[in-house]
Amino acid sequence: MNQYYYECFSCKSQFSKQQIENDLLYLCPKCGEAEKNKPLIGVLKIIYDYKSISKEIRKKDFLNFIPGKFWQYPQLWPLKHSSKKGSVSINGIAESLLNNIKTVSSPLVKTKYNNNDLMIFDDTRNPTLSYKDRASSLVTIKAIQLGIKEISTASTGNAGSSLAGICARLGIMSHIFVPEKIPIGKRIQIQAFGASIYLVNGDYDQAFDLCLEISKAKSWYNRNTAYNPLTIEGKKSSAYDIFISLKGNLPDYIFVPVGDGVIISGIYKGLWEIKQLGWIKKLPKLVAIQAAGSDALVRYIKQKKFVYKRADTIADSIHAGAPRNLYMAADAIFKSNGLDVSVTDNEIIEAQKKSAKEFGLLVEPAAAASFAGYLKFVKNGIISPKAKSLLMFTGNGLKDQQTLTNWNDTPKSYSQDEWKRILKIK
Amino acid sequence: MNQYYYECFSCKSQFSKQQIENDLLYLCPKCGEAEKNKPLIGVLKIIYDYKSISKEIRKKDFLNFIPGKFWQYPQLWPLKHSSKKGSVSINGIAESLLNNIKTVSSPLVKTKYNNNDLMIFDDTRNPTLSYKDRASSLVTIKAIQLGIKEISTASTGNAGSSLAGICARLGIMSHIFVPEKIPIGKRIQIQAFGASIYLVNGDYDQAFDLCLEISKAKSWYNRNTAYNPLTIEGKKSSAYDIFISLKGNLPDYIFVPVGDGVIISGIYKGLWEIKQLGWIKKLPKLVAIQAAGSDALVRYIKQKKFVYKRADTIADSIHAGAPRNLYMAADAIFKSNGLDVSVTDNEIIEAQKKSAKEFGLLVEPAAAASFAGYLKFVKNGIISPKAKSLLMFTGNGLKDQQTLTNWNDTPKSYSQDEWKRILKIK
Repeated sequence: MNQYYYECFSCKSQFSKQQIENDLLYLCPKCGEAEKNKPLIGVLKIIYDYKSISKEIRKKDFLNFIPGKFWQYPQLWPLKHSSKKGSVSINGIAESLLNNIKTVSSPLVKTKYNNNDLMIFDDTRNPTLSYKDRASSLVTIKAIQLGIKEISTASTGNAGSSLAGICARLGIMSHIFVPEKIPIGKRIQIQAFGASIYLVNGDYDQAFDLCLEISKAKSWYNRNTAYNPLTIEGKKSSAYDIFISLKGNLPDYIFVPVGDGVIISGIYKGLWEIKQLGWIKKLPKLVAIQAAGSDALVRYIKQKKFVYKRADTIADSIHAGAPRNLYMAADAIFKSNGLDVSVTDNEIIEAQKKSAKEFGLLVEPAAAASFAGYLKFVKNGIISPKAKSLLMFTGNGLKDQQTLTNWNDTPKSYSQDEWKRILKIK
Repeated sequence: MNQYYYECFSCKSQFSKQQIENDLLYLCPKCGEAEKNKPLIGVLKIIYDYKSISKEIRKKDFLNFIPGKFWQYPQLWPLKHSSKKGSVSINGIAESLLNNIKTVSSPLVKTKYNNNDLMIFDDTRNPTLSYKDRASSLVTIKAIQLGIKEISTASTGNAGSSLAGICARLGIMSHIFVPEKIPIGKRIQIQAFGASIYLVNGDYDQAFDLCLEISKAKSWYNRNTAYNPLTIEGKKSSAYDIFISLKGNLPDYIFVPVGDGVIISGIYKGLWEIKQLGWIKKLPKLVAIQAAGSDALVRYIKQKKFVYKRADTIADSIHAGAPRNLYMAADAIFKSNGLDVSVTDNEIIEAQKKSAKEFGLLVEPAAAASFAGYLKFVKNGIISPKAKSLLMFTGNGLKDQQTLTNWNDTPKSYSQDEWKRILKIK
């Protein structure tokens, strides 16, 4: 049985897992607040007994694990598991389910840009083609262990298609609340996977609030990002995957697209844990990239206060006027001596084109934002192109075809004979 | 240096690798024929020295390899490599390239259908989201070793987007000939990856012939499927991946969607090699699934002769009136005691729906065809649902959104208050 407890990010109160899980609580019972169009207060973190885990798993053995298989180290997940002599395995149903989900196992791509080394964490080939599968699989397996049959989430598109897909695979019902402007590919995924879809006449911030209210009334297990602490927990796994893939030699910078701020918080959590386990001394600097039209975190860091502004960007996955995990995301940047920057939609599209043509990686706008941020910082001389940089690519390009159609017109079609003439073949 | 030679499938003549590769030959120099709208004659197979390889690699060690990393056994690829004491590695550029491509490493999904075990080889999450990356990566690396700078291919869509993506990653120019009715997602991939695209006013069969003619005139290295023997060779890798993933316990049946017949030929080749290496005694039965409107192989097996019929099916990836590798595909079925069947477009769509909802796997129509064939054979009592069956899923659903849009209408959108009323939340 795993040892862990919950700690409030805001008031630092600690709670046993029974206190939180028996009543299916999400936010801190003391100070938690989920207000409309505001970052959440009282987001919970899960804390393990790192001292005892570091005695159970040695760094050397950990680095020999296969990236993406997170059931190799069940001690670091908030799931039931049994320890057998010689092998530790997550017990019963969870193990076969985890085996069945299979995230991509080695998404780390080493490439070059302008003759400088550049690493890309290509998380666009997970089961539903986005990073969100990391959170959805953990939440869904937890739901199964808790005996829950229905899960809900609000989503700009990826979290929803992810939850729908993972739930389809594991035989759980899912309810997905999305803004009506969701990219068609993501909407189709949700519907095809058999989820109930609720198109909200409004944007993601409104879908989030509506989903909270309805899930509470219907007693659905809620996967809303940041609100459910297991979303941060699931998203920490990429930090471990990077650590394993690079044999412990972490990069100097990790570029992360930021909407609600949960991915960057999750990566920070994973890195922080690796430090707690005594396996690293220094964390990579986390670099938050936001779209200029959805830059609440960048403004918060500058102005030291949150101001709601309706978001507007083509990068739907990081479209969030009120990033729900704002405070934890800001803390991740602060604690890692990181940076933050916003990029325009044009810069995002340019980065999307460059990524496809130079790396052969066709990613959605939100993912391209991390590359746009890298290009900006390198151009401005803030980050050296010689530094060890890693870009997080978080969603596949085919999930949002409309954006791609805008810069890839249908070419004219010709007959065989016409082509021979055009190409000057006799 | 690897030892291998080429053997003609039609006349059985043997040629040294110098004889074929020095002049960049594709078909058999003695009997090869590539006629319009006809299966190819003289397709070449690559034959290794299995006796000596079986002394170098033991079955036990092979089964401990990681699926998808084909540079672990360079002896079985037609590439230059050097053997160093203690470790065998494909030399120089090829090794880092191979490391960089990274196919999905464990695509085997064990699931259940109607309470019976069913295995799915989910090859829809390769770099460009289709099986074709297996062939494209081998062909492109070979091109680099041969000092070639431009590659061409004809394609219904997946081979082209695959070649374009792999070439973008490896810095090679690609020329892609596709029918004008190519699904938008695949067309966009080709364009975004920076390839030259040639839309042909006609179908795949015409694009194939045109590409052959123009590539010859332009001296481009041609990846046309079956015509280039390395396509069959690249596609054999899934047989090894299945062998490794299942720890040597191969299934009774492998269901393969068939268009040009190269995937099924490649899988057969891989299985045949595993048998030559002495690691298995009996091959799984290969089951060819074709679309009813593109069933040249099924008709050939029945009537013992090839008759060209213009193809018509929504499953674009297996749309081929003149399967170029018809004879080798028929041989694979015959030699493995396999089966063949055609399924209607309706059956394909039903299978596509079932796969998304039951397995959480959203695949393109051609991939769903393998499931449709399984359902048909089980329903007809020809294959027992208790048999160990494995379905090959060869392309991601998001590569062809139009088909998905047809059965996933845009739902109506409501405001927060309207949703609360509809869902009866006060």
